[in-house]
Amino acid sequence: MKKGKMFIVSGPSGVGKGTVIKALLELRKDVCMSVSATTRPPRPGEMDGVQYYFLDRETFQDWVARDEFLEHMEYVGNCYGTPKRYVDTAMEKGQNVLLEIDVQGALEIAVKRPETVLIFILPPSWEELERRLVLRGTDSPEKIQKRLQRAKEEFRAAQAYQYFVVNDTVEEAVRELDAIMTAEHCRPGARTEAMLGGL
Amino acid sequence: MKKGKMFIVSGPSGVGKGTVIKALLELRKDVCMSVSATTRPPRPGEMDGVQYYFLDRETFQDWVARDEFLEHMEYVGNCYGTPKRYVDTAMEKGQNVLLEIDVQGALEIAVKRPETVLIFILPPSWEELERRLVLRGTDSPEKIQKRLQRAKEEFRAAQAYQYFVVNDTVEEAVRELDAIMTAEHCRPGARTEAMLGGL
Repeated sequence: MKKGKMFIVSGPSGVGKGTVIKALLELRKDVCMSVSATTRPPRPGEMDGVQYYFLDRETFQDWVARDEFLEHMEYVGNCYGTPKRYVDTAMEKGQNVLLEIDVQGALEIAVKRPETVLIFILPPSWEELERRLVLRGTDSPEKIQKRLQRAKEEFRAAQAYQYFVVNDTVEEAVRELDAIMTAEHCRPGARTEAMLGGL
Repeated sequence: MKKGKMFIVSGPSGVGKGTVIKALLELRKDVCMSVSATTRPPRPGEMDGVQYYFLDRETFQDWVARDEFLEHMEYVGNCYGTPKRYVDTAMEKGQNVLLEIDVQGALEIAVKRPETVLIFILPPSWEELERRLVLRGTDSPEKIQKRLQRAKEEFRAAQAYQYFVVNDTVEEAVRELDAIMTAEHCRPGARTEAMLGGL
């Protein structure tokens, strides 16, 4: 069986990452989302191993010490991390693992796992991103300006990414993500090595 | 309008390149084949600018001297070359240009145009390639062994290629070629530079 690969999807708040990823998961049965670990308590309805692995702080620190995370960070008092074991097991089973994380975490993983494919979702333009944030209606004008600023900073930090998918329409963005996954499986790897071995 | 890109497809005789490329050209209207120039006389039904640009030897040498070719070679007394102008005009018009050439010519082009995407079509196994060559029924057993040997040499020489498409079924191979083209258009380029410019 063909081993899965790891794909990281980053992109600004408001760009529509969630919608695109959801459509991709419906399209491709060989793709799954990575499940993160966190020290924040579960919200009603959340289940361990589904939305997150819920760990107490001591266990989390223990996992950090045992190098069990591909990346981890602290955010407003809670710890979050990507457990290696989950990702590796899924890939061994032939699943392509999708991680939705920010650029900093992505670059951290790319150092440890240079074969990881980094994809950044872009809005068609900065004006369009602003328009989408306004339409969403959840943020104050100040908050929207902050999000825009952060989006531009993320993009600037993402220059080592291999792919940039413009989310103009969801259909087109999903088609491109799907194509990137298919194309990346045509990279030199186990199969070409077997063919070389047969020479 | 989005500029086209150049894709080179190489692969052994008998692997089914022709069938796969034909199906791809039917699938994607934004792909065209590069038209080569040659000094060999046209065969009945061949038209200048369609199958080949038919040049006399003097004109061909003149084009070589004026650096009009991306690559050129001589084969059993005739010269063949890939004219830059044709390729560049097509790309300017948004067409992805497909070149079907051998590994040596491909690597020559890759030096001059490092943005060229190199794709090698592989058989599912060497045994399967042999079986296909036998089934084709056009070659003697000795000739088939020579073709197999040449196929393995080409593959060994193609280790700098970015993609390896296994032609197991035509449908799957076309799906992968199509995906590679779509994915390569998500590489950093004019669009991401425009977004960076807007920062």
